[in-house]
Amino acid sequence: MTKIKIGQVGLGRLGQVHASNIVNHVKNAELYAVASVVDAELAYAKDQLGVQHCYKSYNEMIGNDELDAVVIVSPSGFHAVQITQALEKGLHVFSEKPIGLELEHIKQVVTEIDKHPDKVFQLGFMRRFDESYLYAKEAVDNGDLGKITAMRCYGIDPSAGLDSFIQFAKNSASGGIFLDMSIHDIDLVRWFTGSEFKSVYSLGNNIAAPELSDCEELETGACLSELEDGTIAYFLAGRNAQHGYHVETEIIGTEGMIRIGNAPEKNLVTLYDKNGVVRPTSGHFPERFKFAFVNELNTFVNSIQNKEQSTITGVDGLKSTEVAIAMQESFESKQIIKL
Amino acid sequence: MTKIKIGQVGLGRLGQVHASNIVNHVKNAELYAVASVVDAELAYAKDQLGVQHCYKSYNEMIGNDELDAVVIVSPSGFHAVQITQALEKGLHVFSEKPIGLELEHIKQVVTEIDKHPDKVFQLGFMRRFDESYLYAKEAVDNGDLGKITAMRCYGIDPSAGLDSFIQFAKNSASGGIFLDMSIHDIDLVRWFTGSEFKSVYSLGNNIAAPELSDCEELETGACLSELEDGTIAYFLAGRNAQHGYHVETEIIGTEGMIRIGNAPEKNLVTLYDKNGVVRPTSGHFPERFKFAFVNELNTFVNSIQNKEQSTITGVDGLKSTEVAIAMQESFESKQIIKL
Amino acid sequence: MTKIKIGQVGLGRLGQVHASNIVNHVKNAELYAVASVVDAELAYAKDQLGVQHCYKSYNEMIGNDELDAVVIVSPSGFHAVQITQALEKGLHVFSEKPIGLELEHIKQVVTEIDKHPDKVFQLGFMRRFDESYLYAKEAVDNGDLGKITAMRCYGIDPSAGLDSFIQFAKNSASGGIFLDMSIHDIDLVRWFTGSEFKSVYSLGNNIAAPELSDCEELETGACLSELEDGTIAYFLAGRNAQHGYHVETEIIGTEGMIRIGNAPEKNLVTLYDKNGVVRPTSGHFPERFKFAFVNELNTFVNSIQNKEQSTITGVDGLKSTEVAIAMQESFESKQIIKL
Amino acid sequence: MTKIKIGQVGLGRLGQVHASNIVNHVKNAELYAVASVVDAELAYAKDQLGVQHCYKSYNEMIGNDELDAVVIVSPSGFHAVQITQALEKGLHVFSEKPIGLELEHIKQVVTEIDKHPDKVFQLGFMRRFDESYLYAKEAVDNGDLGKITAMRCYGIDPSAGLDSFIQFAKNSASGGIFLDMSIHDIDLVRWFTGSEFKSVYSLGNNIAAPELSDCEELETGACLSELEDGTIAYFLAGRNAQHGYHVETEIIGTEGMIRIGNAPEKNLVTLYDKNGVVRPTSGHFPERFKFAFVNELNTFVNSIQNKEQSTITGVDGLKSTEVAIAMQESFESKQIIKL
Repeated sequence: MTKIKIGQVGLGRLGQVHASNIVNHVKNAELYAVASVVDAELAYAKDQLGVQHCYKSYNEMIGNDELDAVVIVSPSGFHAVQITQALEKGLHVFSEKPIGLELEHIKQVVTEIDKHPDKVFQLGFMRRFDESYLYAKEAVDNGDLGKITAMRCYGIDPSAGLDSFIQFAKNSASGGIFLDMSIHDIDLVRWFTGSEFKSVYSLGNNIAAPELSDCEELETGACLSELEDGTIAYFLAGRNAQHGYHVETEIIGTEGMIRIGNAPEKNLVTLYDKNGVVRPTSGHFPERFKFAFVNELNTFVNSIQNKEQSTITGVDGLKSTEVAIAMQESFESKQIIKL
Repeated sequence: MTKIKIGQVGLGRLGQVHASNIVNHVKNAELYAVASVVDAELAYAKDQLGVQHCYKSYNEMIGNDELDAVVIVSPSGFHAVQITQALEKGLHVFSEKPIGLELEHIKQVVTEIDKHPDKVFQLGFMRRFDESYLYAKEAVDNGDLGKITAMRCYGIDPSAGLDSFIQFAKNSASGGIFLDMSIHDIDLVRWFTGSEFKSVYSLGNNIAAPELSDCEELETGACLSELEDGTIAYFLAGRNAQHGYHVETEIIGTEGMIRIGNAPEKNLVTLYDKNGVVRPTSGHFPERFKFAFVNELNTFVNSIQNKEQSTITGVDGLKSTEVAIAMQESFESKQIIKL
Repeated sequence: MTKIKIGQVGLGRLGQVHASNIVNHVKNAELYAVASVVDAELAYAKDQLGVQHCYKSYNEMIGNDELDAVVIVSPSGFHAVQITQALEKGLHVFSEKPIGLELEHIKQVVTEIDKHPDKVFQLGFMRRFDESYLYAKEAVDNGDLGKITAMRCYGIDPSAGLDSFIQFAKNSASGGIFLDMSIHDIDLVRWFTGSEFKSVYSLGNNIAAPELSDCEELETGACLSELEDGTIAYFLAGRNAQHGYHVETEIIGTEGMIRIGNAPEKNLVTLYDKNGVVRPTSGHFPERFKFAFVNELNTFVNSIQNKEQSTITGVDGLKSTEVAIAMQESFESKQIIKL
Repeated sequence: MTKIKIGQVGLGRLGQVHASNIVNHVKNAELYAVASVVDAELAYAKDQLGVQHCYKSYNEMIGNDELDAVVIVSPSGFHAVQITQALEKGLHVFSEKPIGLELEHIKQVVTEIDKHPDKVFQLGFMRRFDESYLYAKEAVDNGDLGKITAMRCYGIDPSAGLDSFIQFAKNSASGGIFLDMSIHDIDLVRWFTGSEFKSVYSLGNNIAAPELSDCEELETGACLSELEDGTIAYFLAGRNAQHGYHVETEIIGTEGMIRIGNAPEKNLVTLYDKNGVVRPTSGHFPERFKFAFVNELNTFVNSIQNKEQSTITGVDGLKSTEVAIAMQESFESKQIIKL
């Protein structure tokens, strides 16, 4: 079977995770080309990963007829256009979330995706590929928990990154904490329940980082929502977990409850020392979702080879974004927002 | 030091816990008298606990001049009157929550309490006397967690009691899940933060017990609230925890996070069997708060002997009830309620 | 029912635990008298606990005809004589372990106990009264674990006490780490298996406290033993647990495994901070076995009142001591010792 | 960089793990050839993994001049000869443990390895490549635990495999439980302490599988040993863990204690159901050491490419085997064995 030739755009932190995974862990693919406006990133791809076709322009890269697929890890503002261009060139597309910054753009992209049913489009909701989430999904689908009554989703970034976020926020817009962080959780709730959101009500504060108020950003955001099937879902997003990277999902069902990442244990080590009995924890997303990132790209490549569509569609991106935007709007208006 | 002579009204499930504790674990007190309209309960007090003065009427009991104090564990509807009568008789009062069913009554009782500053009044918020909560409170007061940014409070009754609650609900009003269950959590949030509630927004469902909808009761209730100091507090109350009695409180601070009862471990046993690695769990509130119930009554008795006032006041009962009522009102009106 | 009048000898650390429990938590008993050669200890009993009969001499104390029972918490060297004298005076006896320092003395005491079948004799193996051990015992007796194949017993004192033990060891003999510490574990193995020891083989080192070698003491002792029913039992005793007081018992059976105290959690608090996910731990034996100490004395008093014999007999003390002495002998001779 | 061409002999359970890893996860290597006497295994390699050179004879396979290295996963009795032949052909060698069944043969192989210092020889002690073990090793090497005083090593196979082991044992010799299972633990103790074994004393029983006694095999084996530096090491090997595959290593140091695999959690899921609070567990070694198996082969291939020697040498295999044989001899002779 010939290897899928991938061109990747964007080689920042997450971009390097993907690029390195393609080179080292996605057997059926080849990192054929990369594009970046940052010289150091191109040098990294060439020197560290041995990528032979390095472009300063995305358009030039997708002009290379050898390519089968693109992996889009550029800044969010470019996603919509780059997805569209790639599809028009006849390329399969893996894109990081979000599909776009404006709902209107996302809808146009979804229309574009629909026009290319023979091209695989997969959105980077990597948590769906994490072994713990897959285990929980299977339990839920088996009916082990009965019917779902309530969910709780925490996504709290490590304190170690708070200062750099504050610097970022002074000059850039993240889209707000719900769009920036809760979108993964929104997708999980839709995935686990198979239901859509009916209403959201959000709160937020900056007790841990008062500077963020000046940037119209939040350190902590919270949202209580209801789904169409009656499930209650609570979201907490934060930027200041002292113990590391805390992503936790709870599913309460009529027959039992599951927590994924109740404690984000780094490994199977337990330390008994003067602090007590300690489980070391995951420090950041590349560590916590190390294998999920590999699995999602293997799945993308396998879908291409097996001519199957992805299970994470453009609509998933659209719906999650709609909910995240409503959450932000609720916080700003102090109103319950109906969807 | 002479023992405090206690008269207790009500000998239901919780009443028996208190009565037995007074007899067996509160060294400085004596269960001098009991009152109950149920003959079997009086027989229990006489035969099992050796109580010598057993009354069918509360009024008769508090007419006994030997009494120093009353412990009120009667149905909620009687609390307001019984507290007032006891204070007027010059008795110290320990009362189970709530102080009353109507805010107006509670306010009158608080006024009455204020008129008797030399009488100890203590409300039965036993969680404040649990060793895990005390440990967490000390950590918070020491500043170990920095400033509090968010809290989460779960109170989920065991599935084992769901059927009997459904039967109860067909004939009686619990006051709603927030008044019935979340009131303990509301008190904890006020205790940990030292702040008052600003707004509440509630949801609820009966996916696990559809019959409850006919009784205007909830199996699951949830509420997202904001405190005056900006703290975000989330509440989940339920009646269907398959693993037992799940009371959990989370305090997120700028310097760390604490969870009390993340798993309600029954003891220090871990079982490794075909189910996996299993921690057995507490089955019900008398087990989970066994020592808290003892501690609260010892504290009440010690306060009397040391002529100190209780730290859990009538105002605590009033404020918690106001919030719980607002939570219920929010659920019913589907509106955000300001306090 | 009249209260059992107890006279206690010895008011050191453990003595104060017992005395305080009798006063505060053993409803059916009264701490009628105490004896100690230390004036400060008598002052403590009188002032803090309100004991009215305080003696400088044990003999004088047991001469008081009002006494029903004695609680012996004196230095180990006095136990054998004091037990014998109390039994001869017609008193019920609760004694801390060991019954005596020499096997010959213990055997004489056992003979003496046998001569007074109407007197309750109970040895201070408090772990049998701990709720976690009781839970495990019930599981084992129910057959939940099938047949026992192996056990593991850890008893590690907190580092906080190491220096004071080193000072103690310079002037006094503890009897060796196995007699001093493992004797509780030996009793547990006999209790859980219902079988007797066949052979022991011990090792030891002082890597953590080289000074102890000069005192012929061990910081760490280990023993591999076989029981008559084929069960393998491993023991580790130590004096240097940085995380607190680590008593752990593992029971491996053909159908499952139980660990009691896998982590000696102090309470239900979990702390998420810069160290990771932390469970605070018990700091010392009075904390870890707080309720077991109460339960054992309540059981002693109830046995007296109900005219039942104790389930922890003199023979249990004799057998455990024989095994502990063999463990020490094995370490010294570097030989396997048969029992 | 050209890929390392690997020829693998043996495609049983572990063989398939290695072969699949080479194909899918070892980017710098190619599974160029396989050898097996079992037709179905060759068919698997050809059809599932796309291996092009499939041999019924090891000698024929290593006659293929294209090969760079061999991976030996054949039955233990063939290892010594196959390692020697491969080295003589100028091939790098990765071999599963043990190097050989007889100490004499192992010593000859070690001599042979020494003669080929330019060839990488790596023994399959995969646990050294597990992320939890690596984390613990770094902590130990950093001095986080101070000096090591005692270790404990458990290796308990899942009950699910007990019947098939009994069938195996009726016809074949495993070499005994210590050589079969504890050898990994022995290697870990040598790795963590940097010290060699001084004495061993073993026990064993077949309470869980009496049939094994007829085969001169053990279901449970235990050994207490002393190292030259004074460290005490306890080993438990078993074949009947109801909860799955239990490999646990404990390192007690003067400054703290580490447990690796205290509970062999399968993932980050916690289940709260009628059994209590449950962590699902790893079911077997391919699951538990999934990534360690990948890491060890990547390390082997990288060593070849970087012209570095392996850190797991023939001497490691020799020493571990010597200790395992002594453990078995101790069990059979009921004597302490000095090394």
